[in-house]
Amino acid sequence: MNWKNLDSIAAYESLCELKGHVNLQEAMSGESGAERVRKYRVPMAAGLTYHYAAKQVDEAILNTLQKLADETELTQKYEALYNGAVINTGEKRLVLHQLTRGQLGSPVIADGVDKRAFYTGEQKKADDFANKVHNGEITNEKGEKFTTAVQIGIGGSDLGPRAMYLALENWAKATGNFHMEARFISNVDPDDAASVLKSIDLSRSLFVLVSKSGTTLETLTNESFVKDALTKAGLDPSKHMVAVTSATSPLAGNPDYLAAFFMDDYIGGRYSSTSCVGGAILSLAFGPEVFARFLEGAAEEDQLAKNPDILQNPDMLDALIGVYERNVQGYPATAVLPYSQALNRFPAHLQQLDMESNGKSVNRFGEPVHYATGPVIFGEPGTNGQHSFYQLLHQGTDIVPLQFVGFKQNQSGMDVQIQGSSSQQKLGANVAAQIMAFACGKSDENRNKNFDGGRPSSIVIGDQLTPEALGALLAHFENKVMFQGFVWNLNSFDQEGVQLGKVLAKRVLAHETDGALKEFSELLGI
Amino acid sequence: MNWKNLDSIAAYESLCELKGHVNLQEAMSGESGAERVRKYRVPMAAGLTYHYAAKQVDEAILNTLQKLADETELTQKYEALYNGAVINTGEKRLVLHQLTRGQLGSPVIADGVDKRAFYTGEQKKADDFANKVHNGEITNEKGEKFTTAVQIGIGGSDLGPRAMYLALENWAKATGNFHMEARFISNVDPDDAASVLKSIDLSRSLFVLVSKSGTTLETLTNESFVKDALTKAGLDPSKHMVAVTSATSPLAGNPDYLAAFFMDDYIGGRYSSTSCVGGAILSLAFGPEVFARFLEGAAEEDQLAKNPDILQNPDMLDALIGVYERNVQGYPATAVLPYSQALNRFPAHLQQLDMESNGKSVNRFGEPVHYATGPVIFGEPGTNGQHSFYQLLHQGTDIVPLQFVGFKQNQSGMDVQIQGSSSQQKLGANVAAQIMAFACGKSDENRNKNFDGGRPSSIVIGDQLTPEALGALLAHFENKVMFQGFVWNLNSFDQEGVQLGKVLAKRVLAHETDGALKEFSELLGI
Repeated sequence: MNWKNLDSIAAYESLCELKGHVNLQEAMSGESGAERVRKYRVPMAAGLTYHYAAKQVDEAILNTLQKLADETELTQKYEALYNGAVINTGEKRLVLHQLTRGQLGSPVIADGVDKRAFYTGEQKKADDFANKVHNGEITNEKGEKFTTAVQIGIGGSDLGPRAMYLALENWAKATGNFHMEARFISNVDPDDAASVLKSIDLSRSLFVLVSKSGTTLETLTNESFVKDALTKAGLDPSKHMVAVTSATSPLAGNPDYLAAFFMDDYIGGRYSSTSCVGGAILSLAFGPEVFARFLEGAAEEDQLAKNPDILQNPDMLDALIGVYERNVQGYPATAVLPYSQALNRFPAHLQQLDMESNGKSVNRFGEPVHYATGPVIFGEPGTNGQHSFYQLLHQGTDIVPLQFVGFKQNQSGMDVQIQGSSSQQKLGANVAAQIMAFACGKSDENRNKNFDGGRPSSIVIGDQLTPEALGALLAHFENKVMFQGFVWNLNSFDQEGVQLGKVLAKRVLAHETDGALKEFSELLGI
Repeated sequence: MNWKNLDSIAAYESLCELKGHVNLQEAMSGESGAERVRKYRVPMAAGLTYHYAAKQVDEAILNTLQKLADETELTQKYEALYNGAVINTGEKRLVLHQLTRGQLGSPVIADGVDKRAFYTGEQKKADDFANKVHNGEITNEKGEKFTTAVQIGIGGSDLGPRAMYLALENWAKATGNFHMEARFISNVDPDDAASVLKSIDLSRSLFVLVSKSGTTLETLTNESFVKDALTKAGLDPSKHMVAVTSATSPLAGNPDYLAAFFMDDYIGGRYSSTSCVGGAILSLAFGPEVFARFLEGAAEEDQLAKNPDILQNPDMLDALIGVYERNVQGYPATAVLPYSQALNRFPAHLQQLDMESNGKSVNRFGEPVHYATGPVIFGEPGTNGQHSFYQLLHQGTDIVPLQFVGFKQNQSGMDVQIQGSSSQQKLGANVAAQIMAFACGKSDENRNKNFDGGRPSSIVIGDQLTPEALGALLAHFENKVMFQGFVWNLNSFDQEGVQLGKVLAKRVLAHETDGALKEFSELLGI
């Protein structure tokens, strides 16, 4: 394989010549716009469709993006990844999160075991545990059923599982798949744990401690906080806790936990929602069958990502359009805007996934790159965002590309007809309207009421946010980020940028500081 | 007053010559760094302090920023605003949100009334109502006390009040000031209302409907949803609802509501947290005295903002440093990073406040401007963000200026000592460490582990997040955004950019579409 910087790729040079090539206002107007909507779409897994009609692309750009995909060997690099190559070169690790949900290529044997079997085996353990909690085989000290599961984790052990839980909570309640409430403790701020603990019945709560290394400062601190509270309440912490960790961590094989489910160094935290990191808590909340359906959606999307034809590969196409927007058009940020309240925290998860993977200035060989890499990612659900930051998106001085998500049906089955339409129809009407307002704008002699348009967006549309749809959506973005990392020639699977802060924080707590750091520490009461 | 575009200001020309002027790595190292921390600070209200040592400023830049403040007449424009000038020129409206918390200048008489008296009078009505709910004078149909207050509103009627509620919830619980739970319904997605209604006791819930115009689609739809649910539960909606609206709206003087509290067109939604929009729900939740303390903190900060000396005016200084970063240094985004879980949704509120106010391309006369205006604003609480998007902030190809917030004490009073330090100390140690890691970086021969530094940040530090401190913090950012709008010569108080989407959505619901909009509408099941 050839690992080359983007600015040494011939197709990239051609792409740069296509800056400002598409007049989106014209392209999306009238019959030409309708034709684009019918044509510029790619099926995703689980019945979803990726629509890119309102992106600044045409045949010339798509052809060049295909050449870019070919020249940067995206398909081959993905293949190498899922067949077990050391893609995370900095940390000398394989990258195997896709194996948690499917076998894409040859069996991957590492550390003497078949890794697919390892991951599914651990999930099976988590499934069995969840079933025993649900049927009352595993209970609290008094023989009462557990009613609440509380995840203690931070970053990848928090954002993804939390976003997935919120995404399916109402669906599960409406479909009879709801077993237990889940809550989450992440921040080292003691008010986070205090607030969660006050709101639950400790005696009926099961805590899922998630730390791959078993050494995460926040997570261990919050574990102590929780154990302290359990003990003070006359409860035995070891009857209320399970661990999700690596087999070599201090948390493994430890009698302090009812059970331990293992992951390994080949799955990064931000890619771990489909491993036991998400699987333990989601199986407890919704049952193992629902979690299996979530994995199926992701596995199906991973299969689509193998297609070398970008017009049939929604993940690769989305990635390449993003590169065009970032490197050719020069847009600094991307907004993720799901029109579904259930996807409330999905943008926060993608913010980590994307910015932690590709927010880097050196290539996979540690050499500085001379082009922009990962953009700032932010977002809130629509229609809420419309009444907030959309003003800047419509009329601000910077153009921010948009990624919409929308569904035909809601999850709860509850709705109300007002003024001739349901709430769900109003929701859909709004996202359709926004796409067009952003693309085409509207001229007005009063420049204050003028909309330039030319602001590109894509939308993923599905029937309903089911477990399969959620899995497909998650895998879509994971694969998008992976392909962009390949194009930018980055290692998307390490995160050295978070280390320095940790080192300095330890120094502050040890009072080994001077200069400005000492001053700030004193100001903060340390 | 002279309303001039930024690029016609002489001091701005001087400022542009100071691009890249400060070497932050050097400036913040050793004794020079310690000296900066001691010197570069400004007292804020309520015992808070704004620290800007880790910003890319020095005497030369500060002098030029002072000239910019003088030349753009920031103090005079603020004075004109609080004395009742028509600052919102597009909509021909006064801008009076500061009057909700204090009288900064002469009495403002509009529509025949003293506006300060009007706002305080309406808050008095809301206070009296809250007291009657708390003492059982106002109850449900069965004479039972209300236990939950649910705000129905969107945008400025949701994000600010919600963020303020979350910011004080744990403090109120710890200090005996907690009266009622508050919940919030905003999205037109029916799953939002359905989920909230399922989680509360309808018969003991009071709904606070907030819409200035009385015509907000989402809010009226959700009102119907709630009324429907109340009726189905055998309850009388008119015994469970109050309205916060303008005196001329269809919601005013309407027997469908237990009471109505008024605001007016001189307070924009995103600036309305200190009006009845925040005051009704926060007084119900925490009692009128707590809300009054919140207003006092804001009023005190507003007073500080009058000082023409930028070194004694934290709001103006923060605004000007932001202009230097945006227009001279060319940074496209700003992250807001509170090290306090209670400020969980404060960044989402600031995202609206800032992006909706200053995300504009035309000046206050409707003429296009040729410089960057409001940046993208995003953020999450620390330490959570450290395990998420900080990778890009440390090592990404774009520099993102940072605004930290930190406190010496937590709110709940609960904490735990692990490895010789409390959680609160770990929290503080982390933010101190981050400031230094971003400013100074750390050289490493392995470029993957190298930190360039030179990434500017400020921090607001306080003893504890009390009502007064929260009020001061809110007013600080409101005033910062106002001053930036003056510098950029924008009207920060209208939001024409949200109109086109509304018009097109109505067209979709009326099936009056063609072309791409019709295609998208059909794909979304409308």
